[in-house]
Amino acid sequence: MSLEALKNLENRFESICSREVAALDRVNAALMAGAYEYFLGNGFVWVETPMLTRVTGSCENVDTLYSVQHFGTQAYLPQTGQLYLEAKIPLHDKVWTVMTSSRAEPCTDHRHLNQFSLVEFERRGDFSVLLPTIEGVVKSMVSSAVKKCGDELNSFNSSAKECLKGGFARMTYEKAVGKLGLEWGDDFKHEHELALVNEAGRPLFITHYPQEIKFFNMRLNREDDRVVNSADLIMPFSGESAGSAEREDDYDVLVKRLKQSRMFSILSQRGVSINEFNDYLNLVRNHRLLHCGAGIGFNRVSQSVLGLESIRQATNYPVTAQSLY
Amino acid sequence: MSLEALKNLENRFESICSREVAALDRVNAALMAGAYEYFLGNGFVWVETPMLTRVTGSCENVDTLYSVQHFGTQAYLPQTGQLYLEAKIPLHDKVWTVMTSSRAEPCTDHRHLNQFSLVEFERRGDFSVLLPTIEGVVKSMVSSAVKKCGDELNSFNSSAKECLKGGFARMTYEKAVGKLGLEWGDDFKHEHELALVNEAGRPLFITHYPQEIKFFNMRLNREDDRVVNSADLIMPFSGESAGSAEREDDYDVLVKRLKQSRMFSILSQRGVSINEFNDYLNLVRNHRLLHCGAGIGFNRVSQSVLGLESIRQATNYPVTAQSLY
Repeated sequence: MSLEALKNLENRFESICSREVAALDRVNAALMAGAYEYFLGNGFVWVETPMLTRVTGSCENVDTLYSVQHFGTQAYLPQTGQLYLEAKIPLHDKVWTVMTSSRAEPCTDHRHLNQFSLVEFERRGDFSVLLPTIEGVVKSMVSSAVKKCGDELNSFNSSAKECLKGGFARMTYEKAVGKLGLEWGDDFKHEHELALVNEAGRPLFITHYPQEIKFFNMRLNREDDRVVNSADLIMPFSGESAGSAEREDDYDVLVKRLKQSRMFSILSQRGVSINEFNDYLNLVRNHRLLHCGAGIGFNRVSQSVLGLESIRQATNYPVTAQSLY
Repeated sequence: MSLEALKNLENRFESICSREVAALDRVNAALMAGAYEYFLGNGFVWVETPMLTRVTGSCENVDTLYSVQHFGTQAYLPQTGQLYLEAKIPLHDKVWTVMTSSRAEPCTDHRHLNQFSLVEFERRGDFSVLLPTIEGVVKSMVSSAVKKCGDELNSFNSSAKECLKGGFARMTYEKAVGKLGLEWGDDFKHEHELALVNEAGRPLFITHYPQEIKFFNMRLNREDDRVVNSADLIMPFSGESAGSAEREDDYDVLVKRLKQSRMFSILSQRGVSINEFNDYLNLVRNHRLLHCGAGIGFNRVSQSVLGLESIRQATNYPVTAQSLY
């Protein structure tokens, strides 16, 4: 397979002209079609989210925001459309979008791109519907690839079988850190994720992370407020491929957690006021509707299904600190 | 209808929570689903295009590029994924994508946004397959809206009937300027477009524009080299809603036209070398395959189908010089 050439960032226009890349393109197209079919078949309303935003386009990583001058206003390339999707929950039970997430990380490696397609949804309901929805989307993507590109997948070291053979595995963060000999509050490294997912033999949800290391609006667990009702999806080869959570619906808790968040402390140092979040905070105050959502990294799912060593192989035009096309 | 409120850019999170907007959202989702169905049903391969690019992400409007610092390199928000799609033509007969087009125009009015969703395709073949393909995509979008949102559309002043009643009309640029009393080389104003489309009573292709006012790689007409084999689609309410052309397949002509283009003259003044276009030029030299393509402005189609006065009403989060969410 000449897909090795795709690990390199140079001569990209030549590399992406090989026959093997044609197969890769068709698999990617089938994966995206599978996402589309899932949302269309399950009553999700597609909505556009803005691709130039205020700080409310950031997720927890405000230190990796790309800045853009927009007629005298400081604008940013969004990392997520989450808050903009959530704003539609008073009108629709379920919404979704595909957006480009931008992260100005100077050290992009074979797991990270500066930009990637993020498949996002928000829906009414609690944690009990969240994980089945993510699993439904991912399985629809993989099934679509198997159905439309069975021959192509035979030439890859695909994880499709593991993805489709049964329900995804689940493990709490607490159990995972115990297993790996880590400390409470540690985040997982890529090798940790792969160890866990390989042992599970299928995609694995790690649930209930410590609130300190997660986004401010992930909902506190009412029985154990050390943790939030969140789940990350770990997939073979690519590791963390989706992040998700119930959204905090208690206005007072939400404001308190925003003010305590590392994100807000960085923003405050830059002179950004909490008023920037007023639209979102007012929404939660005026329309208290328990809901949850997820962001699924399209290129991570693609890397996993194609069994590729590098995420750079899963995309034609990888934007990294060393490449721009 | 409270859709009047959407003409305003303020209090957006309140405005987009009204019942009328729910109908608008469902129509937009159906329109996008219709585009998806067309491409999926007609053998087009979806591919990702980069959302942070070199100058090759610009269309003719390089003076309205948003600049972004990307680790010491000057990057831009793309206006089109066209050249990146064209790079896939050696591998696939037909490709498509949806990307966000960014235009830093300081004077955004009720026809212009600084960002909009652009549905783009490239396919092998000449002018004779180009217009039917665009018509197929747009009709699939409108049919999808009629089928899935018939009730919703009844509450709008929809142009759906005009779009679906027969073939789209056609008129050459030369005939159009004659009819309007304009000079050769003039571009059309919005009122001109509306006069022509209202007279036609259905969407109208204006074809064969003067080469001077169009993108450098639109293919010269071999019988009359004053013009290129291009077509703009004019729709009721919104006016120009798609741009399209055969792509120049003669390497020498292409290089000459790039060097003569207004775009390149502006880029040269900024110190940008012609080498920035080498990947694309090499592609045309090494894989001469006559092909054509189009960019369809999703929000313009939406504005037309919904019969709205302002494009700001057709999107939840309009990015304009006066607004950022």
